Amino acid sequence: MSDYPTTRPYRVRQAANRGSYDRETVHAILDAGYVAHIAFVTRSGPVALPMFYVRDGESVLFHGSRGARFMKELTPGTDMCFTVTHLDGLVLARSAFHHSMNYRSVMAHGKPELVCGPEKDRAMALFTARVRDGRPDGERPPNAKELKATDVLRLPLVEVAAKVRSGGPLDDEEDMSLPVWAGVIPMQVTFGEAVRDVAALPEG
Amino acid sequence: MSDYPTTRPYRVRQAANRGSYDRETVHAILDAGYVAHIAFVTRSGPVALPMFYVRDGESVLFHGSRGARFMKELTPGTDMCFTVTHLDGLVLARSAFHHSMNYRSVMAHGKPELVCGPEKDRAMALFTARVRDGRPDGERPPNAKELKATDVLRLPLVEVAAKVRSGGPLDDEEDMSLPVWAGVIPMQVTFGEAVRDVAALPEG
Repeated sequence: MSDYPTTRPYRVRQAANRGSYDRETVHAILDAGYVAHIAFVTRSGPVALPMFYVRDGESVLFHGSRGARFMKELTPGTDMCFTVTHLDGLVLARSAFHHSMNYRSVMAHGKPELVCGPEKDRAMALFTARVRDGRPDGERPPNAKELKATDVLRLPLVEVAAKVRSGGPLDDEEDMSLPVWAGVIPMQVTFGEAVRDVAALPEG
Repeated sequence: MSDYPTTRPYRVRQAANRGSYDRETVHAILDAGYVAHIAFVTRSGPVALPMFYVRDGESVLFHGSRGARFMKELTPGTDMCFTVTHLDGLVLARSAFHHSMNYRSVMAHGKPELVCGPEKDRAMALFTARVRDGRPDGERPPNAKELKATDVLRLPLVEVAAKVRSGGPLDDEEDMSLPVWAGVIPMQVTFGEAVRDVAALPEG
């Protein structure tokens, strides 16, 4: 059962049993993240650019300053790759060869589309809500000048796959009795206590 | 003062004041991470591939199965980009336009070199030590077959820059009195309690 295509060239090949093409898995991994790495080819060669994003149904949305180099080069129709990776743990095996990591990742390929008009307003609201992370709203919405300075791009989730490793080490049978600690050291992203901004205008 | 070149095309241009070219900053960001995203161009287009790495002096090392597609396409001399990003917090401003994130990132460009001979053994030991994360050694080292199945690549840190945002929101003066919470919600990667692998061979 696959919601997304498993056709070449974008199916998972290395450790293919860790690949997944179902919508629920892909969405959950995307929804757990804030930063993707976007690959595309600039005049100076390939780049992997960290980028804030939100998922919007069967697309991911991201944005940038209209003046930024990458927004001038990542134009609609450019081939791009969009990757989100969560590192979940270090996996220590009984042999160095089987040391590994637990992770959840999604990789999507396609061409970005420019988001305009009411859809752009909706996208900006999604970005804002994501950064706010459940806090009440009340911030000043973007004005016309700010909106104009920002380009929003959408990548449809069509050629997309998840790849997940979880669980303990997978050692060779002949190593199982070696007297060495083997197991998983879990890793996760945690939020610290919020720090209120006390910046104020200079008096006078 | 710059340890690394600030020449085009790879200097930081967007928010250029957040760019840094000193060795200490670049090394510290690299040493804090486990996974980079590597961009290069395959026959099917650009990819951003998550990749375990270690820093080794003025290089980063990464490895993969010799049979993996990416190792066949990311051959020595291929143009690549190597990016490490740490997300340090959500930055809530008094206006949506100034919402931001705190982060530390490093981006390096160049062409990978194949690591062979005694240097490869040394690289494998560095990978192992990094996964072990301070625990005592004792795992079985890689045998000849395992070494042969693994390719190690090195990217020299030459064209490299760090980009860092820290601190609170940078609001417009006219928004400073808006009655909305503004500040930083810190984020960090934390390690959980280690889970020992209790897998055992079937009896008999």
